[in-house]
Amino acid sequence: MSHTIAPLNPPYRLLMAPGPVNADPRVLQAMSKPTVGQFDPYMFKVMGEVQEMLRTIFKTENKQTMVVDGTSRSAIEAAFVSVLAPGDPVLVCCAGRFGLLLKEIAERCGADVHAIEKPWGEVFSIEEITQAIESVKPKLVATVHGDTSTTMRQPLEGLGEICHRNGALLYTDSTASLLGNDLRADEWGLDIVTTGMQKCFGGPSGMAPITVSDRAVAVMEQRKSIEAGVADSQEEISGSRIHSNYFDLPQIFDYWGPRHLNHHTEATHMLYAVHEASRLVVEEGIDAVIERHWLNGAAMAAAVQGMGLSLYGDQANRMNDVIGVKIPASADDVAVRGQLLGDFGVEIASSFGPLKGTIWRIGVMGANARKDAVLTAAAALGSVLERQGVAVSTEKGIEAALAVYGA
Amino acid sequence: MSHTIAPLNPPYRLLMAPGPVNADPRVLQAMSKPTVGQFDPYMFKVMGEVQEMLRTIFKTENKQTMVVDGTSRSAIEAAFVSVLAPGDPVLVCCAGRFGLLLKEIAERCGADVHAIEKPWGEVFSIEEITQAIESVKPKLVATVHGDTSTTMRQPLEGLGEICHRNGALLYTDSTASLLGNDLRADEWGLDIVTTGMQKCFGGPSGMAPITVSDRAVAVMEQRKSIEAGVADSQEEISGSRIHSNYFDLPQIFDYWGPRHLNHHTEATHMLYAVHEASRLVVEEGIDAVIERHWLNGAAMAAAVQGMGLSLYGDQANRMNDVIGVKIPASADDVAVRGQLLGDFGVEIASSFGPLKGTIWRIGVMGANARKDAVLTAAAALGSVLERQGVAVSTEKGIEAALAVYGA
Repeated sequence: MSHTIAPLNPPYRLLMAPGPVNADPRVLQAMSKPTVGQFDPYMFKVMGEVQEMLRTIFKTENKQTMVVDGTSRSAIEAAFVSVLAPGDPVLVCCAGRFGLLLKEIAERCGADVHAIEKPWGEVFSIEEITQAIESVKPKLVATVHGDTSTTMRQPLEGLGEICHRNGALLYTDSTASLLGNDLRADEWGLDIVTTGMQKCFGGPSGMAPITVSDRAVAVMEQRKSIEAGVADSQEEISGSRIHSNYFDLPQIFDYWGPRHLNHHTEATHMLYAVHEASRLVVEEGIDAVIERHWLNGAAMAAAVQGMGLSLYGDQANRMNDVIGVKIPASADDVAVRGQLLGDFGVEIASSFGPLKGTIWRIGVMGANARKDAVLTAAAALGSVLERQGVAVSTEKGIEAALAVYGA
Repeated sequence: MSHTIAPLNPPYRLLMAPGPVNADPRVLQAMSKPTVGQFDPYMFKVMGEVQEMLRTIFKTENKQTMVVDGTSRSAIEAAFVSVLAPGDPVLVCCAGRFGLLLKEIAERCGADVHAIEKPWGEVFSIEEITQAIESVKPKLVATVHGDTSTTMRQPLEGLGEICHRNGALLYTDSTASLLGNDLRADEWGLDIVTTGMQKCFGGPSGMAPITVSDRAVAVMEQRKSIEAGVADSQEEISGSRIHSNYFDLPQIFDYWGPRHLNHHTEATHMLYAVHEASRLVVEEGIDAVIERHWLNGAAMAAAVQGMGLSLYGDQANRMNDVIGVKIPASADDVAVRGQLLGDFGVEIASSFGPLKGTIWRIGVMGANARKDAVLTAAAALGSVLERQGVAVSTEKGIEAALAVYGA
C-alpha cells in the first residue's frame, strides 16, 4: 500500500433509521473486556448467563436458547436449513421485504415453498393463515413478527396452537420487533424465534439470538451429525446431514450444551455485547422496555403528524418502534435525508421495493427509544423540511410529542 | 429471572492455545467507537479501507476482498456453497481436523467429494495433489494452509498453476496460518483464501476475511440471483440460485461494491475491529509480522525442547505460530492444563481426534507473538510440570528460548 490509513474516528450520528441504531455505550464498553479462551470456565459462565437472560427476554423456558454467530438473517437461515430438508413443504406469509426474504431462504433450502401474499402495509388475519395451513399442510409456517420494510406487526397470538394441531412448527422473525413489542414465545406457541442485536436490543449488529422449542429440536435432531474431526464414534456421523455446517443447529446446541463440543469459535467479544445488552434489558424489565418503545414511538408518531405529515399504514398493527411516514409530494427524499444526515447528524431511512422513495421509516429503538432522541430527531426533520419549502410546522410537531410525554 | 446477573469481569488470561488469543487492546478499543449507519458515507470509507488493507495482507490485487460476517468457518462455507453446485466434483486434501472440516462442508453442499488423505502430522507433496487433480478433474481443489490440529503447514507454491491448467479453482483455508506464515494469494495462484481474526491477526473471533480471484468470481456469478425485496427487476432474480442466502458471495460482493445493495446489516463494531487489526499489521509490515511469528515460534519451540520435552511432527513443515509438543507419559494432560490455567492464568490446548491427549499445542499468535508472552508461558509450563513430578528443566528451557532471541 502506498499510503497510510488513519485510525477510526467515526462521526457522531443519531441513528433513527430502523437499525442499526447507536449501540448503548455500556454495551460498547463491555465489548472491550479481556478475551478468554472458548473453553474457559468463565466463558461457560458467560454463555450460561446469556442463555438464561435470553430465555427471560423471549419469554420462554426453551432449553435451546442461545445466539448464532452472524447477523440477524444468519439465525433465520440456521432455523430453516435445520428444519427443512429438500422437498419439505413450508408456508411463508409475505407482506413485505422480510417476508420475501423468508420465502427466498426457504427456496434456497430446496423446500417446497407455498407463499401467501398481502399488499405491503397490511397484515394477515389468523383465519387467512389457518386456511392456508389446512390446505398446504406445511412442516413449517414462517412469519415475520415485525416487517420493518412496511412498519407492520403481524398478530401471532393463537397461531401456535393452530400450527401444532396441523402438525406444523411455527417460526417467527422478530429481528426488528423483539423488545419493542410484546412477544411471548411459550404462551403463543412459537417454536422458533430469531432476532438481532442492532434494533430494540441496543447492541451492535453481528449476533443473532434464537430460541427453539423441544418440538422443533426433535425435528432438527433427526438429521443430527457430528463433525468427523470431533466425533467420539462413527455412529455420531450421520449420512443424512443438515445442508450446512455453519448453521447446523444440533451441533450449535452441543457447543452450548454440557458437552461443549467444538464447532465454531464463539465470537467472544460479541458475546460480551449480548451479555451486557441482555443484562441491561433484564434489569430494566422486559415489559418496561416494551412500554418505553411504545411511549417513544407514540411520541414520534405524534410529532410527525403534529407537524403536518401523514403516517403510513394501518396504525392498529403498527410496530411500536418504527414509524412509517408518507413522503410529501413537495419533498425530495434524497435531499431531505442527505441534509438531515449531513447537517444534523440524524439518520432516518426510506424503504425498499414498492415503498422505496414513498415512505420514510423512523426507528425509535434500543438506547434511542428515549425522549431527547425523539425530540431532537423530530426537530431536525421539521427544520430540514421547512428549509426545503415543505409546508410543515416543527413547533406543532414538538408540541404534539411533548403532549404524549404528558409535559 | 429470580436473581441478578453481575456485569462482566473476565479473569486475566494469557492465551497461548492456537486461538482465540488475547485480542490486541488497541483493537478492543477501536470496537467501542460510536456506531454509524450501514449506508453512511463514513461506513463506506471504512469498508473501502478494510478491503484495501486486506488486499495487502493477502498479497493480492483481487477486487473481491472483504469479510464474511461470521466466525472463520463461515467464510469457508461461503466459498464452497458459492462455487459448488450439487454434484460438482471437488478434491479435498485431508491431513487433520480442518481438512476433514473442508470435506464435510463440501459434502453438505451436495458436491461430489473426492478426498485424498495423509496421516495427521504429514503434508502432501505437490506431486501427490497433482496426480489426484489429473484423475478427479475437480471444479475446486480444497486445501488447508495451516491445519492447527496437527500444527502442519501445507506447501502450496506452484499448485495454482497446476489447478488452472486442469480447469480447477484452488481454495485454501488460512484461518490459523495467515500473517504467521508466508502466503501469497496472487503469486501462488490461490483463487480463494479465507481466514479468521482471532489468531495471528490479533483480533476477536467473529469476522472472516476472504479474497476471491476474478476466475472464481466468474464461476460464482453463473448462479447470481438478487433478493426479490431489493432487486431492481425480475431479470436480477435467477432460478438457479446458490443454496444459501447468507453465504451467497455474489450478493455480498454487491453489498461491498459501488451498488451497496442491502444484504445483511454489516456487523459495524466487528468491522471496526477488522479495520484496526488490519491497520496495525499493515503499519508493522506484513513480512515483519510473519518474521515476528517465526522468531517467537522458534523461541517457544526451543523452550519446550530445552526443558526436555519433544516436539511433535515434521519440523520442516511446521507452522511458525503453533508448536506441537508430545505429552510425556509421566504427565497428566488435564491436570497440567488445569493447573496452568487455574494458577498461572496461562492457556494451552491439546488437540482433536487421534491427537487428543497425546500432544499439546502452544499458539504464539497475534499480539501474543512476543518475547515476554513466550518466556512467561514457557516458565509457567515448566513450573507446573516440575511440580507434577515430570522430569524437565525450566531453567534450560528459558535459556534455550533466550538464545533464540540472541540474548
